[in-house]
Amino acid sequence: MNHEQYYLDHAAATPLDERVLEAMQPYFLHDFFNPSSPYAPAVKVRQAYEEAKQRIAQVIGGKGNDLVITAGATESINLMFASITGHVVTSSIEHHAVLEAAAQHDHTFVVPNEKGMISSESVKAAIRPDTELVSIQLANNELGTIQPLRDIAEVVRVERRRRADAGESRPIYFHSDASQGLGQIDVHVARLGVDALTINAGKMYGPKQVAALWTDRFVRLAPIVYGGGQERGLRSGTENVAGTIGFAVAAEFAAGHAGGEAKRLGALRDSLEKQLVTSFPTAVISGARKKRLPGHLHISFPGLDAERLIFLLEAQNVYVATGSACAANKGTRSHVLTAIGLAPEVADGSLRLTLGRLSTTKNISAAAAILIRVIGAEMERVGR
Amino acid sequence: MNHEQYYLDHAAATPLDERVLEAMQPYFLHDFFNPSSPYAPAVKVRQAYEEAKQRIAQVIGGKGNDLVITAGATESINLMFASITGHVVTSSIEHHAVLEAAAQHDHTFVVPNEKGMISSESVKAAIRPDTELVSIQLANNELGTIQPLRDIAEVVRVERRRRADAGESRPIYFHSDASQGLGQIDVHVARLGVDALTINAGKMYGPKQVAALWTDRFVRLAPIVYGGGQERGLRSGTENVAGTIGFAVAAEFAAGHAGGEAKRLGALRDSLEKQLVTSFPTAVISGARKKRLPGHLHISFPGLDAERLIFLLEAQNVYVATGSACAANKGTRSHVLTAIGLAPEVADGSLRLTLGRLSTTKNISAAAAILIRVIGAEMERVGR
Repeated sequence: MNHEQYYLDHAAATPLDERVLEAMQPYFLHDFFNPSSPYAPAVKVRQAYEEAKQRIAQVIGGKGNDLVITAGATESINLMFASITGHVVTSSIEHHAVLEAAAQHDHTFVVPNEKGMISSESVKAAIRPDTELVSIQLANNELGTIQPLRDIAEVVRVERRRRADAGESRPIYFHSDASQGLGQIDVHVARLGVDALTINAGKMYGPKQVAALWTDRFVRLAPIVYGGGQERGLRSGTENVAGTIGFAVAAEFAAGHAGGEAKRLGALRDSLEKQLVTSFPTAVISGARKKRLPGHLHISFPGLDAERLIFLLEAQNVYVATGSACAANKGTRSHVLTAIGLAPEVADGSLRLTLGRLSTTKNISAAAAILIRVIGAEMERVGR
Repeated sequence: MNHEQYYLDHAAATPLDERVLEAMQPYFLHDFFNPSSPYAPAVKVRQAYEEAKQRIAQVIGGKGNDLVITAGATESINLMFASITGHVVTSSIEHHAVLEAAAQHDHTFVVPNEKGMISSESVKAAIRPDTELVSIQLANNELGTIQPLRDIAEVVRVERRRRADAGESRPIYFHSDASQGLGQIDVHVARLGVDALTINAGKMYGPKQVAALWTDRFVRLAPIVYGGGQERGLRSGTENVAGTIGFAVAAEFAAGHAGGEAKRLGALRDSLEKQLVTSFPTAVISGARKKRLPGHLHISFPGLDAERLIFLLEAQNVYVATGSACAANKGTRSHVLTAIGLAPEVADGSLRLTLGRLSTTKNISAAAAILIRVIGAEMERVGR
């Protein structure tokens, strides 16, 4: 029996890098001190924590002081949204964290084109005089489509300038949920043009439930959790020292290897895609072919039932996703696939295959063979 | 040179138990799957997570489904407070998390007696027809005073019955912040009589930034973080699987050994207290002598400067606290010591010595000798 695992769901979760765990270890057992305590070993822990924040910030071209460390991307996003009171512009294909945070406000959902791309024109058209936040993801977590953040940032900047010229005091911020992307593509706040950015350690081989919200100096945040006043009063609670140090190691490694990893994953993904499309000419690839995360493949097999496929593949140790892994999504059709107008018959046969560090050439080659065998048998069964 | 450490600040932070780390380890590297993913290994992770919640709940006499796992006691407390809209009754000596969460509401701060004890009568007097939450800590984090939760619970129950009889629909809940106490004293929701309870892994040799809010079935919570709908929609975000499993191991161990540990720590604390009081007859012990956490000693040396003492002791590897370790507290006089009416001259010379698993007989005996030497020299210096 073959005990090898074929993990094609890196967008849902990534294993912790052993080097990250090693970096965290001392802070679990020995340097466990409360960073707010006054004695020397605790002060050292505080310094290590602040230094880790600085290192995380540097990876995205920011400063440590402009980061709020949170317990996950969902919290980061909620912190950003809770900080404004006005109208929100976001897209209909965001992660549930953004959709639900937006639902607490007067909001407009911009719709993507059929490739899952949000145009800056549609964002521009949705901005109102009372809009205070535009939030567009860096890359879509189902399709892998990379959004034109620079263009959208320019639209927000123009509106900000217009307000300044008109003497209007209402702020407008551009936030991006970059939970997906770091480690595969360039994630740099100045180059992206964002005013606020959510990044997520748990999706880049770092510890789970550790994330950050970076904001530019002029962005005014308001806490959702009150208490001891940590994180400049924006996120009270004893700091997650081990987690933040792990985050720093993971972020540096992910960003430092992004170029090579993108090339490697892109080649593997393209090969996998080619094999599947060649074997199944009716297969539909979704997302923007040329503006896609390198490790991302969204493929639909019209007439097949993706949930059945997942269980058939699971029996062969191939682990893939259908739609987003979010709990809220269970048993319903993906809001992303609906938004890009995928026919229900196509949408229901969709797999999301996301490659990452566990994807070696050999592993993907074997996974492709299993996928082709299982999907082929299923097509035969349903008579396609 | 003596390299032994004398850690007398267990109320600020506890080291992670090695058995806890061992239990977490597989979920970092191998069973890293997103618990919302559909394939078998992820389903196993989900089961392990739910089982861990069940185990944590059992420790306090509750059910796993009635727990919301959070990223720290501060978040748990904020979740409870954000769930109500009416008036709040709490005490003036709560942790900053409670004080600041209460400040978001119309609130009444009940004041303690000179031992830091909150009477049920004072809570009763503060309850108004629009009161929706009473929140009183299990044990004070500075003084160690254990509050009469059962009596306060009875006051809340009587008010609830009165409202039911009067046909009033406004709820009233009794929450307790039990961040301090588990592992030293009995923490059981039915025996305490609480409707909601915050417990904190990071203070019981479990992982930092993992806590829970337990609520009785009739308590209606409302989320502060929106998204994927995890934790029955009350706390969105991918679950902290490793942390929750670590929490379960830590909680079971802490509760299972609470009796023996209380006896052991109580004897060590009493011995330390006796030595200090004998050496320094002007020393003032604060808190309720007979209703105090066994490992807790709050002692003031009138005329001395506690901050100076901390640095002098640090040079001898003795680590102690003055007041709470919370960031918000820095450079200001403790709100707890002010509330119990301690004279400024006494308050400013206060040390909080909290014993725990690192406190062996030998370690405490050596620490006592250093404390006596350092404090004695300091008394001589200031001419007391």
